[in-house]
Amino acid sequence: MNAPLQNDTFLRACLRQPTDYTPVWLMRQAGRYLPEYKASRLAAGNSFMGLATNPRYATEVTLQPLDRYPLDAAILFSDILTVPDAMGLGLSFGAGEGPRFAHPLRDEAAVAALAVPDMAKLRYVFDAVSSIRSALNGRVPLIGFSGSPWTLACYMVEGAGSDDYRTVKTMMYARPDLLHRILAINADAVATYLNTQIEAGAQAVMVFDSWGGVLEHRAFHQFSLAYTQRVMDQLKREHNGQRVPAIVFTKGGGQWLEQIAATGADVVGLDWTCDLAQARRRIDDRVALQGNLDPMVLFATPEAVAAEARAVIDSFGPQQRADGRCGGHVFNLGHGINQHTPTDNVTALVEAVHSHSRALHAAAVRV
Amino acid sequence: MNAPLQNDTFLRACLRQPTDYTPVWLMRQAGRYLPEYKASRLAAGNSFMGLATNPRYATEVTLQPLDRYPLDAAILFSDILTVPDAMGLGLSFGAGEGPRFAHPLRDEAAVAALAVPDMAKLRYVFDAVSSIRSALNGRVPLIGFSGSPWTLACYMVEGAGSDDYRTVKTMMYARPDLLHRILAINADAVATYLNTQIEAGAQAVMVFDSWGGVLEHRAFHQFSLAYTQRVMDQLKREHNGQRVPAIVFTKGGGQWLEQIAATGADVVGLDWTCDLAQARRRIDDRVALQGNLDPMVLFATPEAVAAEARAVIDSFGPQQRADGRCGGHVFNLGHGINQHTPTDNVTALVEAVHSHSRALHAAAVRV
Repeated sequence: MNAPLQNDTFLRACLRQPTDYTPVWLMRQAGRYLPEYKASRLAAGNSFMGLATNPRYATEVTLQPLDRYPLDAAILFSDILTVPDAMGLGLSFGAGEGPRFAHPLRDEAAVAALAVPDMAKLRYVFDAVSSIRSALNGRVPLIGFSGSPWTLACYMVEGAGSDDYRTVKTMMYARPDLLHRILAINADAVATYLNTQIEAGAQAVMVFDSWGGVLEHRAFHQFSLAYTQRVMDQLKREHNGQRVPAIVFTKGGGQWLEQIAATGADVVGLDWTCDLAQARRRIDDRVALQGNLDPMVLFATPEAVAAEARAVIDSFGPQQRADGRCGGHVFNLGHGINQHTPTDNVTALVEAVHSHSRALHAAAVRV
Repeated sequence: MNAPLQNDTFLRACLRQPTDYTPVWLMRQAGRYLPEYKASRLAAGNSFMGLATNPRYATEVTLQPLDRYPLDAAILFSDILTVPDAMGLGLSFGAGEGPRFAHPLRDEAAVAALAVPDMAKLRYVFDAVSSIRSALNGRVPLIGFSGSPWTLACYMVEGAGSDDYRTVKTMMYARPDLLHRILAINADAVATYLNTQIEAGAQAVMVFDSWGGVLEHRAFHQFSLAYTQRVMDQLKREHNGQRVPAIVFTKGGGQWLEQIAATGADVVGLDWTCDLAQARRRIDDRVALQGNLDPMVLFATPEAVAAEARAVIDSFGPQQRADGRCGGHVFNLGHGINQHTPTDNVTALVEAVHSHSRALHAAAVRV
């Protein structure tokens, strides 16, 4: 039995309920910019997956940013590629390099052999979720997550990161049937994976479509959005009587916000190229919005950081509307926090978000 | 005195005048995917700048793709970084690497010392333009080009390509005054550079804002678009009684098409994430559009290449409108052609663009 939630500001904003201030968390908030994270990682054999596969370490690093900053949500410490790893593709992280698969999907036989993995292989993730939830003891909600079917497929076919996605796009244009099979399996696996995280204690879930924005307009709809939709259609939306908000974030997806919102997401994540005011008008508060400070702002002075944070909050505007409805804004960066970010600037950021939004929400109504 | 133009389809489409078919050229059409280009480059000491700085070689490689494919325009063979090189930043290309500057702009003194370069230092470019124009002998028009002030500044401050543009964005957020000075000088230099290309024989010019799309919404307007505007305001729009169309292409700029069109560009370039039909509706044929096939399509089968090319053409639709006005579409890729592209697929592409568009323009009116 988990402790009652003491700070539900994040969940309320996701569901477009009134809040006293704008909640804030940061993508990759548990990470290399924190000295205490580096120490934990060293203790885990200087290995990212050493941290992620050990629930004790995963709990430790998930809570580190919360001990430093008054953030309004925690996010599971893990990687988006755990699912394809459990499918048998053989994930590894080279020193100073990105992820790599030993067995990328390059031919018809490999695609035919692909299947939704036994969730028992991902037990370390669900154990980490339970452990983190228990350690949080109700401080803030815990967010679970997964890569989107398309983003997973990019890595599964390319075998690593890519500049131009040539291998996966060649499959898409030359053998769309193979890619559709991969994506259907990914979608079912992601849905089961997220539902199991919810059963283990995740109070919100986020789908990272990190590479949706590299697709041609029609291809985005056919190969990315259709399979995010397939995930959303299977997702548990309530657990133990509580609504579990779902966030969908497509980096580079600013042209497709309406369609992303229509998947049934509670929250649409925005990168920093989007104008938040315009996005809110387009979406008309049918869903909440999350974002969207440029992570590079955090390399300026604390004063500049605070000013840019206030500009983002003012751009969204007051949550209350003249027509009585309410919008929802979760403050975040438009992408993961950079590993070289000065920690004091994060202090300035969180402080500015809380104080400026508190004043705004108390005083004003959006007309 | 140059020979009269035999094929003005490209220029007519840029100016939204009726054409028999949709003209096509490809960004980076003179390049490494062509075996004859590789041979020329080897002859020039296996050096990119060896080709670009020698008007005889630059002419040779500019014409190579025209001898292979019935393309409707030639584009000057050069690099976007010639201007900062002439400013004294020391451009070099490492083996198998991108461009690098020996003297990036990292402090106040370096920024204070920056000035519009003497165009005599860029004489090799203008000589190449004259030489190419003469060698073309009126076959098709010649396009000149430059990087945008912002895109040049990215390289000038970073000193090389970048994943996250941390150095230039840190300057932007912490010392915007320094960046504004660089951009103002770049804009004046780019305008003079393009005007001198026009005087040397360029019949259209294109501004490549390759990195505008990495900017935060407001920052794009302040640091990229405002300086593209400063270029456009100084640009020669006529030469020898002929209109010289200006094309502006911001990669990742799909959210800002209306504002880009409002700079006074005759043509707005689109990357493949844009829906061409939607873009045309937004722009309402106030300018022509150029683009926007995903370059990775060229790795599929010739049949798939032709089908995707037809889809792009159908997406734009007939140039003639029911209200008597005319739209303009220049077919292109949404980014430079990839060096590994199979040459036969380019044959299939150009053939499909010409034959499909000829049938469409003859038969239909856009309603």
